[in-house]
Amino acid sequence: MARRMPLHEKIAGDLRHRIEGRELQAGDLLPSEADLCTEYSVSRSTVRQALAALEASGLVRKAQGRGSVVASHPELHRDLARTGLSLHLGEENTQVSTEVLEYDLAMAPDSVPFFGGTEALRLVRRRSSNGEPFAVIRTWLPRDFAKLITRDSLVDASLHERFASILGRAVAGGRRQVRAVGATAQLGALLETQEGTPLLLLEGESVDREGSILESFQTWHRGDLVAFDVDNPPSALPTVPWLGERAGVRPDGVMGGIDALEGAVSSIETGLAAVQDALQALRRNV
Amino acid sequence: MARRMPLHEKIAGDLRHRIEGRELQAGDLLPSEADLCTEYSVSRSTVRQALAALEASGLVRKAQGRGSVVASHPELHRDLARTGLSLHLGEENTQVSTEVLEYDLAMAPDSVPFFGGTEALRLVRRRSSNGEPFAVIRTWLPRDFAKLITRDSLVDASLHERFASILGRAVAGGRRQVRAVGATAQLGALLETQEGTPLLLLEGESVDREGSILESFQTWHRGDLVAFDVDNPPSALPTVPWLGERAGVRPDGVMGGIDALEGAVSSIETGLAAVQDALQALRRNV
Repeated sequence: MARRMPLHEKIAGDLRHRIEGRELQAGDLLPSEADLCTEYSVSRSTVRQALAALEASGLVRKAQGRGSVVASHPELHRDLARTGLSLHLGEENTQVSTEVLEYDLAMAPDSVPFFGGTEALRLVRRRSSNGEPFAVIRTWLPRDFAKLITRDSLVDASLHERFASILGRAVAGGRRQVRAVGATAQLGALLETQEGTPLLLLEGESVDREGSILESFQTWHRGDLVAFDVDNPPSALPTVPWLGERAGVRPDGVMGGIDALEGAVSSIETGLAAVQDALQALRRNV
Repeated sequence: MARRMPLHEKIAGDLRHRIEGRELQAGDLLPSEADLCTEYSVSRSTVRQALAALEASGLVRKAQGRGSVVASHPELHRDLARTGLSLHLGEENTQVSTEVLEYDLAMAPDSVPFFGGTEALRLVRRRSSNGEPFAVIRTWLPRDFAKLITRDSLVDASLHERFASILGRAVAGGRRQVRAVGATAQLGALLETQEGTPLLLLEGESVDREGSILESFQTWHRGDLVAFDVDNPPSALPTVPWLGERAGVRPDGVMGGIDALEGAVSSIETGLAAVQDALQALRRNV
């Protein structure tokens, strides 16, 4: 039998969607009780029931003498200027773990760049923060990597760090694309969320300094837990992003240092190329 | 009365989610009819009914002698390395239009960076491609911009181009964040899609070359129509992104030339700063 949704549930649902969609953000005042009464043509007790439900779920909190404000929630941040999977975590004591769910040789579908239609090493991994899954990663690698990078070596580890430490080939860059998609039934189960939940999908390829392919990957992140940061100049200038990592994400401090050197060299190359491109552009336009 | 979903609808729905979630991509073969019969324990006629429904909706097409493959669909691409709203469009004859839905002075909520708690110029705009809405943009601007940038001047125009042409202040950069969120009822109506549909949200601030604030914005893009491109070096090196635009997106060819010069100068500054940062990083690590 179809159940008609009570009005207080509808009001709470509307406000929840506005908060989850970031029309209302942490610290923002919700519309006043009086305004909500007018907007929905309901009594004050109905509005209070809706606000109490949002408060009980932790989405809003009472602010002394000001009404209800949107509560803040912890979020994982990923820097898109970096090529790797490292995250700037909201809290110092966040533990990131990585499970290897699948590791096998398989025929890559035609659509997989560089690997389509060939047999390749296929990984499915899951990343969690304090035991809560936030990302599922599907990766295709050259098949002979299987001889060197074992399944066990990827547990609670960074694949990019393994490229550098085992193969001696640091990730120097690659194409990346970002999309918002709904969770499939399988991804929803792996990420402990509902089918259809918005996921932030990052996909692309990574190459080494010579431009040789290292991996083709897709990473589905839970939209309610993860945000990507993109810093454009000039605000990006004061920081050196590859040195900004926190302990706990990187499994090996020594490799972090070597990666930093690799990053610095790669950045000098990028800088010089940007200057050359800019001069070419000026010559074409002046 | 609750209706039990027929099996062919469930199979079609599962495959649709796998395509929309990009587990299966354009050109990929779907599992064979025999494999689907086994996976769902159904007859071949049920599987054929599911595939026919996907074919009718344009998601898949028959490939002679190979089975069903995922069809390609047009997508708008936005380059995150660029600061503006320009898009690399899938087809030459795409017409982008911009409506100004709201234009007023209003008190910015506390959460709005730079403008929170002050009266500012507030814009709500909608972008469409060939008449199909793909983005809703909410922008906060310094209140005195209202004297110079009129509502009419923003119709079918780029705000960043107006900053340059009217104020003489080109956007030089700024912080950007990307998230996947569900559509609110209001955004769903504006974007002609269902409430809860995954949207790709880009938000941040833009500053001029002196680092002075120009705008704080949130742009909700339809996840099924828009993808963001992020090129990391070295694959990004051969292109000069700010010269890669197509006619029709930019309202004014002359301003495009001036923007290109601004972009070139900004890029030289970025390049030099990257070199300086890299050298500092090397000195700290060697």
